[in-house]
Amino acid sequence: MKEIIAVDIGGTQLRAALYSDQELKPVKLARMSTQKTPKESGPQEPVERLAQLIESIIPPDNKVDVISVAAPGPVNPYTGVLLEAPNIPGWWDVPLASILEERFQVKTLLGNDANLAALGEWMYGAGRGHKHMIYLTVSTGIGGGIIVDDRLLLGARGLAAEVGHVTVLPEGPVCGCGQRGHLEALASGTAIARWVTEQLARGAESQLSPKQLVTAKMVSTAAQAGDSLCISALAQAGYYLGIAIASLLQTFNATAVIMGGGVARSGALLFEPLMVSLKQHIMNSHYLDDLVITPAAFGDEAGLTGALALGRNYLNQIANSD
Amino acid sequence: MKEIIAVDIGGTQLRAALYSDQELKPVKLARMSTQKTPKESGPQEPVERLAQLIESIIPPDNKVDVISVAAPGPVNPYTGVLLEAPNIPGWWDVPLASILEERFQVKTLLGNDANLAALGEWMYGAGRGHKHMIYLTVSTGIGGGIIVDDRLLLGARGLAAEVGHVTVLPEGPVCGCGQRGHLEALASGTAIARWVTEQLARGAESQLSPKQLVTAKMVSTAAQAGDSLCISALAQAGYYLGIAIASLLQTFNATAVIMGGGVARSGALLFEPLMVSLKQHIMNSHYLDDLVITPAAFGDEAGLTGALALGRNYLNQIANSD
Repeated sequence: MKEIIAVDIGGTQLRAALYSDQELKPVKLARMSTQKTPKESGPQEPVERLAQLIESIIPPDNKVDVISVAAPGPVNPYTGVLLEAPNIPGWWDVPLASILEERFQVKTLLGNDANLAALGEWMYGAGRGHKHMIYLTVSTGIGGGIIVDDRLLLGARGLAAEVGHVTVLPEGPVCGCGQRGHLEALASGTAIARWVTEQLARGAESQLSPKQLVTAKMVSTAAQAGDSLCISALAQAGYYLGIAIASLLQTFNATAVIMGGGVARSGALLFEPLMVSLKQHIMNSHYLDDLVITPAAFGDEAGLTGALALGRNYLNQIANSD
Repeated sequence: MKEIIAVDIGGTQLRAALYSDQELKPVKLARMSTQKTPKESGPQEPVERLAQLIESIIPPDNKVDVISVAAPGPVNPYTGVLLEAPNIPGWWDVPLASILEERFQVKTLLGNDANLAALGEWMYGAGRGHKHMIYLTVSTGIGGGIIVDDRLLLGARGLAAEVGHVTVLPEGPVCGCGQRGHLEALASGTAIARWVTEQLARGAESQLSPKQLVTAKMVSTAAQAGDSLCISALAQAGYYLGIAIASLLQTFNATAVIMGGGVARSGALLFEPLMVSLKQHIMNSHYLDDLVITPAAFGDEAGLTGALALGRNYLNQIANSD
């Protein structure tokens, strides 16, 4: 029996789950806010909190085969170093895998959460059976993960698959990374909300008020209710997603595009313009033969499921190389 | 001793070479125009001409271990079918590998010429030692090939790495494929020559005359001589190449970008604006750490060397699986 502890480091919440054998449902699950809340005493450091969380679900016999951690932002999966964690102040160049390995004496793996979500979809979700798969998660930002020949694409230092930062409009709006015209600056939830806010400020008609703080979710809801400004906002995001997906399909000749994240739940108002744009930008229709474009199977549990997939994949490889 | 026949199908010329052992210099080399010239009698069909060319270099003992063919345009490397050969009328869905296998009773491999050029650069040229490598060839069109984890990226049907058709300017000029704003429509030799021609027609000052048929080579030469219109043309191509390369680096986290093709020989007037644009569009400088951007080692012989690499790679795999 193989025991895996999967961990998902979120900006607001840390989650850890103990999985046994081939089950997708955890035997134990624990969560904790990433930062100390004002009422709490005790450990200040996210690393210490994470270790305590893991400790709380370690089985009585102490037997764990691998700990697998999904972290936001760039990580080096080869060295287990977390390079930067957005929303967690002070986490720079943290050798997280080594710290946890030393503490628990268990092999520890680290991966970028969007990369691992891709691996999770490929092993257990909407990407099963696809040797070549593209995963995009569209929420506050845009991340992704790519499967090439049944393997997760990592690149030289594990920084591959940053699909949110593909340029889709030179000289376009400023992206979270500081550059201009990236997909994330045009099609993320943040970009959608910002565009609507700008249009409202210019007097555009909408059921949303220029006085409220607009979120992507509000835009999506208003669009479903027929609000034409919000419909345009989703159509524009779909247009740029279509451009990026056309470029990715020509680059990878994948058979599946899996769309995760909150914005991807906007349905036809996002996907129809996306498909029109994809067909408009793809060099020929062979890339669309047998292509599946589908919502992700996993939502909030994408990070944990991805970390589980990484752990299982590792144990399988070890078993096969014996 | 292993004997490989490598073949390069060009739009104007067919070339076949016999290679022995680990040598990069062919033992025999033969060439023929792809189409029958007006003076010739004999076989009409490019396939028949190709077979005759191969026949002319088969060694006396008849022993060849593998035939490996580089073809322009899309091919299916898994089935050995040439889907379309630009510039060779009537070549559609030709099961070229089967035809040659049957005729010569020798295992025959088929690959896209730009993909194979990438493999050649990785095995023998400017990409040696790079596990993750991006190759672009910028000439009349723009093609490419990508090495991921020491393997050629092919995708589900072998249509991967069409880097010339990445969208870099939505609603931009029309590409050879019929869509708009692709890299090839903005940075290929054809695009460079077209842009200069348009500017000349509008009365732009240049040492080139609006009455002559402008080629990319003429633009490059005039730019080296200080012609400001032609310098702008190369700078613009460099700008869009920089955008595409930034997107590719973030996608693959490669450590080498190899630039082949005639346009890539334009030197600093192309590469300097390319680097400025790359830095302007890349999300962070980690992607540029240890990055090598360099001209390709092979020029006209890229196709043959690539086909050789494919053949040797295949023989090595067979040897390793024994």
